[in-house]
Amino acid sequence: MSDIRIDPDRLLADLDTLRSFGQCETGVVRPAYSEAELAARGWLAERLRAAGLEVAVDPVGNLFGLPRSDAPCLLVGSHSDSQPEGGWLDGAYGVIAGLEVARASRESGGPPIAVVSFQDEEGRFTTLTGSSVWAGQMSLEEARRLTDNAGRTLAEVCRQPQGLPAPVAVAPDRFRAFLEIHIEQGPVLDTSGEKIGVVESIVGIRSERLRFTGQQNHAGTTPMHLRHDAVQGFVRFAERLNARFAEVVTPATVWTVGHVAVHPNASSIVPGRVDFTVQWRDAETARLDAMTEIVRRTAEDVAGEMGLGHERSSYATIPPSACDPGLIEILAEAAEATAPGKWRRMPSGALHDAANAAHRMPMAMLFVPSKGGISHSFAEDTERADLVLGAQALARAAARV
Amino acid sequence: MSDIRIDPDRLLADLDTLRSFGQCETGVVRPAYSEAELAARGWLAERLRAAGLEVAVDPVGNLFGLPRSDAPCLLVGSHSDSQPEGGWLDGAYGVIAGLEVARASRESGGPPIAVVSFQDEEGRFTTLTGSSVWAGQMSLEEARRLTDNAGRTLAEVCRQPQGLPAPVAVAPDRFRAFLEIHIEQGPVLDTSGEKIGVVESIVGIRSERLRFTGQQNHAGTTPMHLRHDAVQGFVRFAERLNARFAEVVTPATVWTVGHVAVHPNASSIVPGRVDFTVQWRDAETARLDAMTEIVRRTAEDVAGEMGLGHERSSYATIPPSACDPGLIEILAEAAEATAPGKWRRMPSGALHDAANAAHRMPMAMLFVPSKGGISHSFAEDTERADLVLGAQALARAAARV
Repeated sequence: MSDIRIDPDRLLADLDTLRSFGQCETGVVRPAYSEAELAARGWLAERLRAAGLEVAVDPVGNLFGLPRSDAPCLLVGSHSDSQPEGGWLDGAYGVIAGLEVARASRESGGPPIAVVSFQDEEGRFTTLTGSSVWAGQMSLEEARRLTDNAGRTLAEVCRQPQGLPAPVAVAPDRFRAFLEIHIEQGPVLDTSGEKIGVVESIVGIRSERLRFTGQQNHAGTTPMHLRHDAVQGFVRFAERLNARFAEVVTPATVWTVGHVAVHPNASSIVPGRVDFTVQWRDAETARLDAMTEIVRRTAEDVAGEMGLGHERSSYATIPPSACDPGLIEILAEAAEATAPGKWRRMPSGALHDAANAAHRMPMAMLFVPSKGGISHSFAEDTERADLVLGAQALARAAARV
Repeated sequence: MSDIRIDPDRLLADLDTLRSFGQCETGVVRPAYSEAELAARGWLAERLRAAGLEVAVDPVGNLFGLPRSDAPCLLVGSHSDSQPEGGWLDGAYGVIAGLEVARASRESGGPPIAVVSFQDEEGRFTTLTGSSVWAGQMSLEEARRLTDNAGRTLAEVCRQPQGLPAPVAVAPDRFRAFLEIHIEQGPVLDTSGEKIGVVESIVGIRSERLRFTGQQNHAGTTPMHLRHDAVQGFVRFAERLNARFAEVVTPATVWTVGHVAVHPNASSIVPGRVDFTVQWRDAETARLDAMTEIVRRTAEDVAGEMGLGHERSSYATIPPSACDPGLIEILAEAAEATAPGKWRRMPSGALHDAANAAHRMPMAMLFVPSKGGISHSFAEDTERADLVLGAQALARAAARV
């Protein structure tokens, strides 16, 4: 086995070219099916062909660069769409790193490597649309009926850049494993000064939408002991939830009360109703379950103590995805060889296409630092040297899978 | 001194007639300057004349029924406008009770008594508009520039019912004292089964609009220990405020967090900003001051502990109004005579026109129960027997002032 030697200048030049599609004064604007994203994918198809790969587009619009041989091979990639006002690296880095590793491998007589850019990872229609259909988590028919915020269906807006072949299914079982490199989108590596994160799992997500119902009343004439104040119920709930969660969480567990809506929301009226969300993420299903139980018990306890009604109006759950233990060790060896002592094992708190790939094949991921932990923002950035280091670790691992 | 014997049937019949102006299927809709309110005031002027009183309207639109003599006399009344979708007794009861007491006094050779219906108590333009101008708390020019929610000025919409005399100033110094009877608008009397409340003070009101500013972030990739979560700051503030207030309040003190606005208010984003109000009411200025100090110190402490920015974007203060000690004793004697053992001394947690009268003359108030404590609602109601009892207590006191 010989190492795959990537060309840093070619990697960064291609990344800059991809950045130029949808580039505005402040950043990159390239949501799925926008003109900019279609142009970017057309260019990307050309680069895959130039790297000696065969271009294929599947029915939901995932773009593949495939080795000529049908023998099961490694698949490397990410997505090339951005948030509506997103950054330039989220997704794009993983696609270009995959392209560079695949062509460098071909040039140096390494193993055949396939590349993918998944469709609509950022959720114009739903989170991870393209990889969900590809991995069989959602039917194509279901996906085509999804609507965006403007009410248009995926079927209506779905188009291909000019010059691409007719859609064809690209079966997951022709790939042996999936690797994805991505910016961290959080502050852990940037804060610690480390260069590479070896992802051990993609966290599961639970969320509940809760409602406390009290008695709307006059804020002057209603004595405190006769109130059923929904905001006070929310406050007690949130404080107690923190205390109870503290008994079961790890430092990697996160939880968020991100949405709060008070009714009638006037300074002189005792609030009669509060709707709010609680979302929590962890890599262990058992811990997610324990937290669900705490959320429900705490809502029940507080409602009982304060004479409030409570209900749960929706519930969402995305299971955790474990990375493959063998692949983790290969990535860990590559990280240590590339950035000795400057890497860590960590969970991914964000969702990635790799979570869908995990349903069909061994999967693992690498992270590089995000400056200031900022992502989904025009300010998203990573040092160029760190982008190169990450791709070098990916190349070293790809040669060993 | 002989007692003033009111006519319960006439009192209730006049109250029903006043209710009929603006009556819709579900309740009374009679905001200031509406057609219904103008018609009601026209009818009220006729009833004042029929009771032997001289009708006068002052420049801001307060409607008076004045005894023929210029000798300083007692003034009794309230307001006849309602909330946009308000109840039938809030204000109207005090006006009709005043009318009944004044005419019953005249019939039985009692003292001369004047009656008033103040303009726009409910705040189409500002709270207590008419009594504020009358008592010299606001200039007429300032009041005429006030706008309603539709952007129209008081000067534009101000009109008189047909048949009323030209506006004339009605000087407060022609009155010896002011008495107002009102529904409680809270649950205290209804809960205790008592029939009459002797108001000792109208509470002062303070309110602050506060902001916590944190760091908006990804709810998956931002570890708990690196967050600056504005909602968590709000929760800690509200919980600690309760604990600190508990050390200085009385059972009559109230405080309310009625308005909360979270930014960007999405379940997957660590909140970067929360704006909220805290309002507190008490009869003692020293206690209001102590609570102001607690609000500010608690915001500062929590912001410091959690690495949040904090600011105060507005501050409002309305001072408490003490009722006259001599009048309180007269009302207490009347309450005990009318409803033996079934009355209490209490503060008013709501504002009333009497608070403005207190700037110019001795003032006191009576409350009757509100069923279920409900007011500013179509469901607002009081037992007819309780309306009669209250007016009888008012009459007994009026003969002794």
